[in-house]
This record gives sequence, structure tokens and C-alpha cells, in this order.
Amino acid sequence: MADLFVALIHYPVLNRNGRIVTSAITSLDLHDIARSARTYGVRAMYVVHPVAEQREFALRVLDHWRLDYGRLYDSRRREALDLVEVVEDLEAALKAAEMVAQACPLLVYTSARASGGASYEELRSKVHSTAGPPIMLMLGTGFGLAPAMGERADVILDAVRGPDEYNHLSVRAAAGIILDRLAGR
Amino acid sequence: MADLFVALIHYPVLNRNGRIVTSAITSLDLHDIARSARTYGVRAMYVVHPVAEQREFALRVLDHWRLDYGRLYDSRRREALDLVEVVEDLEAALKAAEMVAQACPLLVYTSARASGGASYEELRSKVHSTAGPPIMLMLGTGFGLAPAMGERADVILDAVRGPDEYNHLSVRAAAGIILDRLAGR
Repeated sequence: MADLFVALIHYPVLNRNGRIVTSAITSLDLHDIARSARTYGVRAMYVVHPVAEQREFALRVLDHWRLDYGRLYDSRRREALDLVEVVEDLEAALKAAEMVAQACPLLVYTSARASGGASYEELRSKVHSTAGPPIMLMLGTGFGLAPAMGERADVILDAVRGPDEYNHLSVRAAAGIILDRLAGR
Repeated sequence: MADLFVALIHYPVLNRNGRIVTSAITSLDLHDIARSARTYGVRAMYVVHPVAEQREFALRVLDHWRLDYGRLYDSRRREALDLVEVVEDLEAALKAAEMVAQACPLLVYTSARASGGASYEELRSKVHSTAGPPIMLMLGTGFGLAPAMGERADVILDAVRGPDEYNHLSVRAAAGIILDRLAGR
């Protein structure tokens, strides 16, 4: 399998009115998405936030679970949270992933509004190629990634869809579903 | 598509030591799983809790989003939460689903520890059959459904798996992934 990475982006994202904002880090996003990341063999999950106080909050949450209490409470949760790194911007996430994978990751934009891009079958075959580049999935918090992040990406991944047009998934559910489609058994 | 239902079970479930307990209702479970349910065409989601105060808490959360504030804030979230009903036990959920679907649902047990049961392909073909019975997925909170719930079920669904043996997904992620495997496009 190709090296797989996740970047959870808090800026630039949209709010419900379509304006570009910085969202707050949510403790449960870290837990849920780290557990999905660990389940699907992701190498590292980068929590991307431009504000130092928010990054410190994330590090406090992680320390709580990585150190004594969390280790005793649930070692599987620690194992998941060990994948998480907190960085200032996407460049730092890409640089860190490149250090791990020894190659520059293919950057993938995900959005509930994307269509006409790459299908899950196409990207799944890249994930299962041994010769291909590492892959980094960008996941947007708030009401989704700012469209400008799509212009920076190498691949626009089609939105997850159910039987009809409604697809207002939480980022926690979407992360799990996208990873399952790409790397599930 | 067959009528699809979800029951989010808070008793009997396991704690981290494998003891049978009653878990607390979590506001975010209602939101995330309702949004996934709506995305995948689920007819109703039953929040099952034996304690009246906990059911009242869930109803307060739902009212907040169903009435004026939530309606203004995000109509798609209201549309998802409109699927949620709060009931005392599994029998009440089955009875309510039978009223909606006009037939007794096939009861499906889900667990991160299940294997050798029905595959996703098998259950997906039942979901997409027009002649088959309605289907109700039981999802366990805490550390998963008590094994006794498996004995009551008609179908044991295999655990969701990634590339290796680790599969410690949150119930919010697992709900989305299972629904996607059964009803995703």
C-alpha cells in the first residue's frame, strides 16, 4: 500500500454562509479521525491550525491520552492518537509527510460539493499501488475546505454520495467513509 | 431499496472491561449518526435508552435543533435530526419501525469483534432488494453491543476491517462506514 496521510484543516475553511473562516479544534475530531486513521493504516494525521493557542490546546488533549492516564484507560486509543501531529500550515504537514515517506505526497482535495473529479476506484488503485507516490487527504472542518485548497491539490476527489442528493456528513463520518473506500477490506 | 432503520443502543453495552453497562447519551452521536442516516436514505433512527432522564436529555437536544434556532442555523441538520426517535427499549424501536415499513424488520447485530457472519455484499444485496424485509441495524455505544444482543439478531454482520487487525472505530465513524457499504453509491 502507498503511504497514506490525513491533514485535518481548520483554515481556510467555509462557514455556513460560505465565508472563509478559521474553525476551532475539536477534541472529538482528533479522537474519531485518529481511530479511523489507525484502522485504515494511515501513517500520520496532521492537525493543521494557524493559531498557536489552538495548537497548544490540541497538544494538551494529546498529552492527556498519550501519557499515563490514557495509557492505562485504553491503549488502543493511545495507539491511534500517536499518529497525530499538530502543525501550523499545510506546508508543514507536507514537509513532515515527505520526511516519513521519502517522497512528496500527492495532495487530494475532498469536499461534499466536488463532482467530475477522481473516482474512489481510481484513487483506491493509487493507494494500492506499490510504485506510486504517497497520498495526503485534506479534510475540511467547519462547512468544508475553501475552494482555493482545491486549486492547490493534485486530485479532486468526488463527494461521497448516498442514494439521493443529501450528503451533509460530519467530518468524522466522512473521514471514516473516505478511508474505508480507499483502504478498507 | 428496502426500508432501512438504525437503532443506537445504550443498554446492554460493554464497558472497557467487558462488563455490561448502560452508557450515557452523547449529543454528538445523535448529530453525526442522524446526518449519516439521512445521507444514506435511512427511514428512522431510534435512540434506545432505558433511563427516562436520559431520554428527556435527548429530546431536549432534538428540540433545540428542530425548533426555531436549529431551523434558522442549518436546515440540513434539522432534516437529519427529524429522523430521530427516542425509545425505551429495542422492542419499542422494532414496533415503531414495523409501523413505518408495514413489516417486521430483519434485525442486524454489528460489532467490531464479529466474524464469520454475513458479509457486506450479502447484506447490501438485501438492502437493494425490493421484495425483501425492512432492515434494522443495531449499533452499540460504549465498547460495543453486549453479546446477548447477537443472540436476538437475525443477522450478525462482519466487523469493518482495514488493512490490519486494528479496528477501534468510534460508533460515529462505524455508523457512517457501515451505511456507506450497504447503501452508498
